[in-house]
Amino acid sequence: MAQRVAIVGAGVSGLASVKCCLEEGLEPTCFERSDDLGGLWRFTEHVEEGRASLYKSVVSNSCKEMSCYSDFPFPEDYPNYVPNSQFLEYLKMYANRFNLLKCIQFKTKVCSITKCPDFTVSGRWEVVTLREGKHESAIFDAVMVCTGFLTNPYLPLDSFPGINTFKGQYFHSRQYKHPDIFKDKRVLVVGMGNSGTDIAVEASHLAKKVFLSTTGGAWVLSRVFDSGYPWDMVFTTRFQNLLRNSLPTPIVTWWIARKMDNRFSHANYGLIPEDRTQLKEFVLNDELPGRIITGKVFIRPSIKEVKENSVIFNNTPKEEPIDVIVFATGYTFAFPFLDESVVKVEDGQASLYKYIFPAHLQKPTLAVIGLIKPLGSMIPTGETQARWAVRVLKGVNKLPPPSVMIQEVNARKENKPGWFGLCYCKALQSDYITYIDELLTYINAKPNLFSMLLTDPRLALTVFFGPCSPYQFRLTGPGKWEGARNAIMTQWDRTFKVTKSRIVQESPSPFESLLKLFSFLALLIAVFLIFL
Amino acid sequence: MAQRVAIVGAGVSGLASVKCCLEEGLEPTCFERSDDLGGLWRFTEHVEEGRASLYKSVVSNSCKEMSCYSDFPFPEDYPNYVPNSQFLEYLKMYANRFNLLKCIQFKTKVCSITKCPDFTVSGRWEVVTLREGKHESAIFDAVMVCTGFLTNPYLPLDSFPGINTFKGQYFHSRQYKHPDIFKDKRVLVVGMGNSGTDIAVEASHLAKKVFLSTTGGAWVLSRVFDSGYPWDMVFTTRFQNLLRNSLPTPIVTWWIARKMDNRFSHANYGLIPEDRTQLKEFVLNDELPGRIITGKVFIRPSIKEVKENSVIFNNTPKEEPIDVIVFATGYTFAFPFLDESVVKVEDGQASLYKYIFPAHLQKPTLAVIGLIKPLGSMIPTGETQARWAVRVLKGVNKLPPPSVMIQEVNARKENKPGWFGLCYCKALQSDYITYIDELLTYINAKPNLFSMLLTDPRLALTVFFGPCSPYQFRLTGPGKWEGARNAIMTQWDRTFKVTKSRIVQESPSPFESLLKLFSFLALLIAVFLIFL
Repeated sequence: MAQRVAIVGAGVSGLASVKCCLEEGLEPTCFERSDDLGGLWRFTEHVEEGRASLYKSVVSNSCKEMSCYSDFPFPEDYPNYVPNSQFLEYLKMYANRFNLLKCIQFKTKVCSITKCPDFTVSGRWEVVTLREGKHESAIFDAVMVCTGFLTNPYLPLDSFPGINTFKGQYFHSRQYKHPDIFKDKRVLVVGMGNSGTDIAVEASHLAKKVFLSTTGGAWVLSRVFDSGYPWDMVFTTRFQNLLRNSLPTPIVTWWIARKMDNRFSHANYGLIPEDRTQLKEFVLNDELPGRIITGKVFIRPSIKEVKENSVIFNNTPKEEPIDVIVFATGYTFAFPFLDESVVKVEDGQASLYKYIFPAHLQKPTLAVIGLIKPLGSMIPTGETQARWAVRVLKGVNKLPPPSVMIQEVNARKENKPGWFGLCYCKALQSDYITYIDELLTYINAKPNLFSMLLTDPRLALTVFFGPCSPYQFRLTGPGKWEGARNAIMTQWDRTFKVTKSRIVQESPSPFESLLKLFSFLALLIAVFLIFL
Repeated sequence: MAQRVAIVGAGVSGLASVKCCLEEGLEPTCFERSDDLGGLWRFTEHVEEGRASLYKSVVSNSCKEMSCYSDFPFPEDYPNYVPNSQFLEYLKMYANRFNLLKCIQFKTKVCSITKCPDFTVSGRWEVVTLREGKHESAIFDAVMVCTGFLTNPYLPLDSFPGINTFKGQYFHSRQYKHPDIFKDKRVLVVGMGNSGTDIAVEASHLAKKVFLSTTGGAWVLSRVFDSGYPWDMVFTTRFQNLLRNSLPTPIVTWWIARKMDNRFSHANYGLIPEDRTQLKEFVLNDELPGRIITGKVFIRPSIKEVKENSVIFNNTPKEEPIDVIVFATGYTFAFPFLDESVVKVEDGQASLYKYIFPAHLQKPTLAVIGLIKPLGSMIPTGETQARWAVRVLKGVNKLPPPSVMIQEVNARKENKPGWFGLCYCKALQSDYITYIDELLTYINAKPNLFSMLLTDPRLALTVFFGPCSPYQFRLTGPGKWEGARNAIMTQWDRTFKVTKSRIVQESPSPFESLLKLFSFLALLIAVFLIFL
């Protein structure tokens, strides 16, 4: 049975891991390289090695009711989509509330994690750390790796012929902090993920001209979704997920495309995804269509050639003068402190069972938390991973034999499209609700909708048709939270509370009253006719 | 017959007036106070007395196909909504194309316009101007006043109790140029017109906190409308206008509210208009809902009290610390160079027949152009006004007797709500298509849809169901433009051309093909059954 657990990183997943260890009676020690908690959510003016880097304006892509820890809602007066400074505040509140700080060693870099000589029997690890210039070594019964996947910039310069001749400035989006640098410049942003789109839009407020170059395009969604509701509270419901997963793939693909094109035609805005059969991460941006239609951001296809002071795009004859290029070409990940025999990273995939456990290990005493890109929030995903992982590390839950695990990992690598449901094209992408439900099943915490329908039908309907908020993961089983039901039933109240800050007495329009009267009369007549 | 015409102001209406005079064989002299043309569309870093003042980021609210001069489309590569610098460029192109510059005297302020002693007979005016410190006087056969209504800021400080004790900075939105001044400040913007909303949104990118206070609320529309089409190309069609004007007012009001709430619920965002029975100008803003949902802009009701360093809002107990207040409280207008006996301004209304001719004048030799707020673009409105006005000044068209004109003016002042159609609550607001059609009728240039349906049905349908673009006003009559038909038939091509800058080969989804196949089979069976 594991006792001492080393946790690498004090970001959102690290914090959840510490809490889960404490709750299960383990003894966690969290090593954090920087001098504070928060991981990627802690903005600093300068890029720090080994830590994800935010730009000043980052706002959460997932709303507060969908991206909180499952037993710790955001404060009521927080906006629906939380800016990074408030997100960090929230993480600090969480650490304080559950007394996690005492387990975190700051300014401590993990240099290596190696199997102890008796690993096959004990499953123990030797963790070597560096703190204030001093190496230390300690033995742990288990390890949880929570270092994320946004630290190592991916910058394939070879793909941009002529980049070496470019006389302007260029850098990876990781280096980006403030838009001031773009003032009166001609800017090209390469890559249309969330960062690239954010940067292009921000630059467009100051720059002389902004181009956003994308090969694959993307579905661009506004946080302000149907009727103004937060997008993920509408999109991420068990009901819709069931529909999406049970319909034939071509129908789902067509349905998603229709939905995405609802606000604006992606084809007319030059954004349409090249491959619409496989789903890429959505880009969440409230401003991009408005910036395109006002000529502040120009969408362009991929780059054909970079020249000294200009760029030529594919399929467009004109050479465009460019002063600054930002490569928002994403990230790769690696575990420099782990031997390849423990976790092997290939083509952006790690050989991890259920994205967590190295499939080849003799003892299940190492877990990777937060190395997944679900179509939903990272916080509840990492937290649920940690809840299961800790119980595996502790020995309460068992893993299947290695052969089964290796098979799962290989199948995922093949990424064969199925006949039904959504099809994800990128490594690490997965279906949020399905994945979490699977983990919850392992720890016996998945809400049982059928029995709930009998005992608490209102809750059951809200859980099924309403937003799949993290509180649902605490309704039952180990780690059950008494406040979960109430949090679910009041999630919409909290959502509206912050924005409904000016209330006008609603006088129903005479037409609406008339409409209601007619409907009522029609109903009466119908009932009358039925009983006639 | 008028020969010499004095035109005051070289903004959008002034330029159209000069062109119309030239076309009708009159001799226009345009006096422009500043050193260049463009009126409000010419951005300068400093506010100039007697000229409307733009902030740096202003973008047209009406798209290029709907806000051009009716015989002079915007260049094809202009964005759909034109930023102010390009708008000014366009105006200069117009002036060059029609050789208007020779008629404009820059740096010339009009000091007074008075009736000549023989006015009752000649209808002539004495115009006194000031140029390089020298007064000059000249006699004109007619006068066209094109000074607009965005020059005199309206700032009712009495309505904000305690404003005198406020120790922070406050100013009228007219003074606003760049958002830099808001950096890290707590900003309050009062008034939710287009400027107020723009300023609040812009401030929110740099400020510590931004409040937008509105008493009446407003419908906020995105330029990116249904399916991403420019809002006015969808909203401003003859078909929809006919519907809106022929349905009972409560139904139209309800319909508009539904349409406006389509993207987001204005009630949930604290924006809902207090009075929904009367239509106020829409606020065009692509970003506001996104800024509210991310906690960057906070909507508040009206101000209860201003204190030294803070503000208390009505119905909200909390005192909010504030550093800067921007009063976006609008404008009033006046004609300082005209005697009140010529045009009287009262309650934001001038006693002008059809918003153009002083109703009380003995001779119709003075016209005011561009003093109207149609639910559409100002350029084609002012231009159409000028086309009619010039023909009246010239004597080709006649005005009704003064009694009829006075009656029209008084009826407008009363602003009695009708039973059908939209109801406008503010002075100067009017129905765009209806108003322009009326003017076109006077000069015999209104397109006749019935006869067009017989001779050119494709055009007729496009004119009726498509966007009511200004080219329609040049299909027939005096001032007919040969390019009008082609401009109408290609308006959507020009719209998409700029944004569809990355084209992906569309592979029809298998589901869509299947759907089409099924529809075709169903049709076949139906036809078969009918003929059975």
